[in-house]
Amino acid sequence: MKKKFVSMQNLKFMLYEVFDAASLIQYSYYEEHSIEAFDMILETAVKIGGGKLRPFLEEMDKNPPRFADGSVHVHPMVRSFMKESGEGGWISIFAPHAHGGQQVPILVGFLPTFIFNAANYSASIYPGLNTGAAHLISSYGTEAMQRIYIPRLYSGEWQGTMAMTEPQAGSSLGDITTSATPAPEGHYMMLGHKIFISAGDHDCADNIVHLLLARIVGAPPGLKGISLFLVPKKRFNAGGNLVFNDATVAGIYHKMGYRGAPITQLSFGENGDCHGYLVGEANKGLSYMFQMMNEARLSVGFAATAIASAAYYAALEYAQERPQGRAVTSKDPTQPQIPIIEHADIKRMLLCQRAIIEGSLSLLMQCTKYSDLTTVLTGQEKEKYQLLLDLLTPIAKTYPAEMGILSVSHALQCLGGYGYCDDFPLEQYYRDVRIHPIHEGTTGIQSITLLGRCITMKNGKAFHLLLEEIQDAVNTAQADTDLAAYAGELAQAAEKLKEVTNGLIGVAIKGNIELFLADATLYMELFGIVAVAWQWLLQAVAVNKAIRSKPGEDDLKFYQGKLYVFRYFFGYELPKMEGLYRLLLNADGLTVEMHADLFSD
Amino acid sequence: MKKKFVSMQNLKFMLYEVFDAASLIQYSYYEEHSIEAFDMILETAVKIGGGKLRPFLEEMDKNPPRFADGSVHVHPMVRSFMKESGEGGWISIFAPHAHGGQQVPILVGFLPTFIFNAANYSASIYPGLNTGAAHLISSYGTEAMQRIYIPRLYSGEWQGTMAMTEPQAGSSLGDITTSATPAPEGHYMMLGHKIFISAGDHDCADNIVHLLLARIVGAPPGLKGISLFLVPKKRFNAGGNLVFNDATVAGIYHKMGYRGAPITQLSFGENGDCHGYLVGEANKGLSYMFQMMNEARLSVGFAATAIASAAYYAALEYAQERPQGRAVTSKDPTQPQIPIIEHADIKRMLLCQRAIIEGSLSLLMQCTKYSDLTTVLTGQEKEKYQLLLDLLTPIAKTYPAEMGILSVSHALQCLGGYGYCDDFPLEQYYRDVRIHPIHEGTTGIQSITLLGRCITMKNGKAFHLLLEEIQDAVNTAQADTDLAAYAGELAQAAEKLKEVTNGLIGVAIKGNIELFLADATLYMELFGIVAVAWQWLLQAVAVNKAIRSKPGEDDLKFYQGKLYVFRYFFGYELPKMEGLYRLLLNADGLTVEMHADLFSD
Repeated sequence: MKKKFVSMQNLKFMLYEVFDAASLIQYSYYEEHSIEAFDMILETAVKIGGGKLRPFLEEMDKNPPRFADGSVHVHPMVRSFMKESGEGGWISIFAPHAHGGQQVPILVGFLPTFIFNAANYSASIYPGLNTGAAHLISSYGTEAMQRIYIPRLYSGEWQGTMAMTEPQAGSSLGDITTSATPAPEGHYMMLGHKIFISAGDHDCADNIVHLLLARIVGAPPGLKGISLFLVPKKRFNAGGNLVFNDATVAGIYHKMGYRGAPITQLSFGENGDCHGYLVGEANKGLSYMFQMMNEARLSVGFAATAIASAAYYAALEYAQERPQGRAVTSKDPTQPQIPIIEHADIKRMLLCQRAIIEGSLSLLMQCTKYSDLTTVLTGQEKEKYQLLLDLLTPIAKTYPAEMGILSVSHALQCLGGYGYCDDFPLEQYYRDVRIHPIHEGTTGIQSITLLGRCITMKNGKAFHLLLEEIQDAVNTAQADTDLAAYAGELAQAAEKLKEVTNGLIGVAIKGNIELFLADATLYMELFGIVAVAWQWLLQAVAVNKAIRSKPGEDDLKFYQGKLYVFRYFFGYELPKMEGLYRLLLNADGLTVEMHADLFSD
Repeated sequence: MKKKFVSMQNLKFMLYEVFDAASLIQYSYYEEHSIEAFDMILETAVKIGGGKLRPFLEEMDKNPPRFADGSVHVHPMVRSFMKESGEGGWISIFAPHAHGGQQVPILVGFLPTFIFNAANYSASIYPGLNTGAAHLISSYGTEAMQRIYIPRLYSGEWQGTMAMTEPQAGSSLGDITTSATPAPEGHYMMLGHKIFISAGDHDCADNIVHLLLARIVGAPPGLKGISLFLVPKKRFNAGGNLVFNDATVAGIYHKMGYRGAPITQLSFGENGDCHGYLVGEANKGLSYMFQMMNEARLSVGFAATAIASAAYYAALEYAQERPQGRAVTSKDPTQPQIPIIEHADIKRMLLCQRAIIEGSLSLLMQCTKYSDLTTVLTGQEKEKYQLLLDLLTPIAKTYPAEMGILSVSHALQCLGGYGYCDDFPLEQYYRDVRIHPIHEGTTGIQSITLLGRCITMKNGKAFHLLLEEIQDAVNTAQADTDLAAYAGELAQAAEKLKEVTNGLIGVAIKGNIELFLADATLYMELFGIVAVAWQWLLQAVAVNKAIRSKPGEDDLKFYQGKLYVFRYFFGYELPKMEGLYRLLLNADGLTVEMHADLFSD
């Protein structure tokens, strides 16, 4: 097997032709970078992914972390990859120079992780968690915290985590009970349990640094009483030596997929000696954590897309090489069989995968581009891009997470019975990708966030800004006769989205909040389709521009292929909104009205 | 955990109130049976499922079959379950008395297997395979074959298999190469390899009996040269002793799910001593095998539905017991949390599961009812029901197989992170259910069969008969004021299905067969939605009838719950056909036109 997992040509197309990464270099904040440097980043990442991560994909799945003697043992490659991620500057890639980072645009800086995700998702999450933890400390930690923790997180010596979930709370963060009692020396004594903590303990880092949500004793109930703490597994004692900080692993989960990374149950302060350090101000923990959560949500979108990408290339290779059957017009059994990629149904499944993967990647890069613009712009412009980013983030998490499952399922299906067996990596990708609609906020939670918060914030300003962005794309595409019809379809789709949105807002205004939010998940689905159609139209504009500049034969093939995927999205995926549009307009509150006890049998 | 896996109340509702099992007893062929006997069958099956199969579900997944010393070792419960299936008459349940069977209507007789599937899918397939193998021998085997093999298959001492797939052929059965050379004694010498053979070898049966497709040397190429053979692992020698028949296991597959049953690679005649016995006439093997295949396709539909049912009850129990969050209208964090089943989004996911499961079961039971009618009726009536059965079989395989995946995925999602871990059985059900769109003919193959063969056969007669059946249901429901609007929706949906079908037939008539079949899978999806909507309308008619007869409080709850699921199907599932309708009407041949080499990157 060739084991290809991403398309470099597509990454460069997206980066330079769709999102014009060069334009970011014009800002002084990014001026030291260059296209050559960006190319080098991508190429190095693919080399690392193929050489050092992909070879361990199956092995890490078959030999998941073990919990023994009170600690968690993971594959030894984790230590070397953490080290490499530190030395190569991958962990700190988009942190500002001021915090010891590389200050690469996020548009570019998310792509190495995407590439690592595609090569070996479990392996990729270890350094990825450090990036988020270090950013939180950079933003809100004390100078001492920054001095002690950030270099060791960026170097990959220590492991960062995000510790939120508790057994009795789950998605309902306001119900967490882990407590923090002020100690005279300025730190807090921590007491409580956390569950589902990724990389919450393992033997390939010298220390674990938890960014943890807890309640200071006497804090207000609910979300308003949550503070952010830094709680290391080992703390420095007065003599400057690392000593055990009473943070123990109670166990690990046995998961269906994503098996190379340990998801842990943790216990803090069992022996009354767990020190925690308040990050930022008391009772503001949730808003701080949301910074990390927003990055984490985009990370999940990228990861789902990446796994789907790896699955696609495995399916493509099989489809090109596996002979079976004949053209429906030529059933002569004495003729040789044809590769299955010649069958329309296989092409359909491959196109569907590309439509999902390249559409998702586009939406995610749109988000990272907006994020960069919030960094380099100020005032109203900055606010505009921040609003667009906030609105699109739950969609850029959810569309790839949900559709990534379908994409990998199609990839598996291309291999028939072999897809179901571990002779090929498809069955693993299918198991791995299923985590994404669950972690970092389930699809249900993202959907309530989208409709209940992002749509309504600032009187719908973000939504109107997005409609303007879509209209801009429509206008541009309408100037291209080949694309005018598609532009019209997108405009219609956006109009329907607006109609549904206004209908729902009307329900909210009448005060029926339960009904307003009841079908939020289906509203998310509709929104995702429209958002990705918009991204496909942007890609088609870039493709046609490139074709007009008379590219070489291989490039021309790439662009022509893209146009088929674009047509596929508009022909096969966009129509799915029709049913959603109809049901959201006609929703009669069935799920609100039905009493739970009618599920009696 | 309660470990409920099926609803007895729903099974009885379907059997007696929707499909009027009592009406079958009026025919002399089934006259010895009674409602009481049917009840007993269901209740005994649920008892066996819960007591003897469900307890091994996880254990058989975690300890899959081992291939060692040239043979396959499976869980010892298989032997006792095979014995029990023989003694209890489960294997021969719907075989005619003349062949030693119980002659139970198939409408009833498929349900024990459904119940066993839901309790433990892997365990259930062993005796299930015997049923199919014995039926083939009954129908086409010699008197001697029937005497030797059928009693031992019905008793569960021997294991039957269906051996079709070969490495170089896969779904393209015309390309199989296993050969059969006539021997002077009347048997054939077999030579070849088979792959993906379920229960193709194991140590819990005293012998394995393969119903195997092969080519007699000199036979015509392709499908027209395929014959059916009986090839035992051990054959009787002249002295009446069982001796090894040169049928060896080359290996077993390591599968993502369905891990309790061995899927084998087999080798026949490696030492030139494998005897095979021709079943029926030479070169007619494929048509014979299709009898078994049709039963097998319904079995797959039942199995997918059954796994989804088990997943639903696990999710329901969790949703009823897990407190988390509060009503969206009451965010007071000092109030206790509510069970998640109170959240609209969870209710939506539970309703979706029931809509799929109970809709699928209905469609499958419609097929088995038709099958019974072909047994007891004659002439035009018999032909009518045979045509309806032939038309619906690929749909009754595919809708449950494809939608069962979504159903189990929703069940898993209800449990959040726990659904992804093996603390609960959801992750196993998710892995198990994924086999169904693959085995016994992939979704792609079923779809081409539906559109390319079943729709066009006898000038579209089967399709017109089905439209009449749907119209009958519409007429009945229109007489009920509560259902008239839904009846109108179904009539519209059927009209759209007809429009799409006629459009596609038009393409075929113009000779563009590739284009005609290119989107067969999406046509299947559309058809499945309409077929299940029809079944839901039939259920609603039965529910309203029952409600008017003033049932007791518990029964009333059941019926009221049903009506919500019915409304869910029409409100949330039926609209999905809108996008499919649009895209099938507007199909521009994208997947036919695109050259395979444009998938270059």
